[in-house]
Amino acid sequence: MQVMIDLCVVPLGVGVSVSSYVARCQQVFEEAGLEHRMHAYGTNVEGDWDEVMAAVKRCHDELHQMGAPRINTSMRMGTRIDRKQTMDDKINSVANKLNN
Amino acid sequence: MQVMIDLCVVPLGVGVSVSSYVARCQQVFEEAGLEHRMHAYGTNVEGDWDEVMAAVKRCHDELHQMGAPRINTSMRMGTRIDRKQTMDDKINSVANKLNN
Amino acid sequence: MQVMIDLCVVPLGVGVSVSSYVARCQQVFEEAGLEHRMHAYGTNVEGDWDEVMAAVKRCHDELHQMGAPRINTSMRMGTRIDRKQTMDDKINSVANKLNN
Amino acid sequence: MQVMIDLCVVPLGVGVSVSSYVARCQQVFEEAGLEHRMHAYGTNVEGDWDEVMAAVKRCHDELHQMGAPRINTSMRMGTRIDRKQTMDDKINSVANKLNN
Repeated sequence: MQVMIDLCVVPLGVGVSVSSYVARCQQVFEEAGLEHRMHAYGTNVEGDWDEVMAAVKRCHDELHQMGAPRINTSMRMGTRIDRKQTMDDKINSVANKLNN
Repeated sequence: MQVMIDLCVVPLGVGVSVSSYVARCQQVFEEAGLEHRMHAYGTNVEGDWDEVMAAVKRCHDELHQMGAPRINTSMRMGTRIDRKQTMDDKINSVANKLNN
Repeated sequence: MQVMIDLCVVPLGVGVSVSSYVARCQQVFEEAGLEHRMHAYGTNVEGDWDEVMAAVKRCHDELHQMGAPRINTSMRMGTRIDRKQTMDDKINSVANKLNN
Repeated sequence: MQVMIDLCVVPLGVGVSVSSYVARCQQVFEEAGLEHRMHAYGTNVEGDWDEVMAAVKRCHDELHQMGAPRINTSMRMGTRIDRKQTMDDKINSVANKLNN
């Protein structure tokens, strides 16, 4: 089963600057070979369900190892069985509506 | 790694009434033997990370089998390594603050 | 327009214990006279859109005044125009499916 | 008070294709003169709290008028009083960590 997620991982107990933790997550997705795109309030990742979720778990593991005692993640997860749809497909679909 | 999640699974393409799909998810958590509590806008589940995430995946699988062509889930996921904290611990901690 | 929300307000930069901040939000909803129910990973609130959103803003205001330099909230928001549906209606609807 | 949000508005009861609804929300943010950026699983918006929330309310209003009987939105909301931080600031902060 393919899944597209948007996740925002927030470490607690490490002060207000969390960019080094967010950067580590980007490396996790890169190392996992998963298509991923960061935006200003989270990251889109798509791929096989088990591979994507293994990477999300590794984000929590790595951030705890970096010293974060507590982590609070919010995540959207989308699956569909009617057809395949990539990140670009979703964006193009809205763009087409805006241009017509 | 223990995790506490709050998830809200929303099937698309099946009309506005989604309670039978939500009920199926409750059965999935029950059958998985996971501590779970439904509220008016989601469900709290706690347990071992892999067991909880396997149940979330099974929710998507089952709802697709029930006929939902597309599913959109929103989920919070909390982990901590400083101490154990159950659902009751979290609620009692806030209640104590309100009573003092 | 009526709305039902589920929100989880997380202050950053104040350590790992956030229960006193969550308790303050419960007081904000109580003082606003809004129907609200806390669970282990957030709070359900229902009422008029403008009143509910004013209370959410006041949560951010109050927590900043308590000393939180940064706040990260995750929120679900549901509206419907086909019929009225309270928090109890939603829970009962699922419970009926589980019992049949 | 400035706020940065990431929102994902999902109409129910209108089938599986929701791109025309998402496109309408983009127009709402454009017409409101708010900085906004769509990604594959939501939209970042930043600005004054009251202006941003008025636009979110207008998204729900407009989508109901387009025929959606029910809407389920998930939203992250971030505020901070320690310093100003734009969408580009957040992205650059992570990018700097990745390059060092």
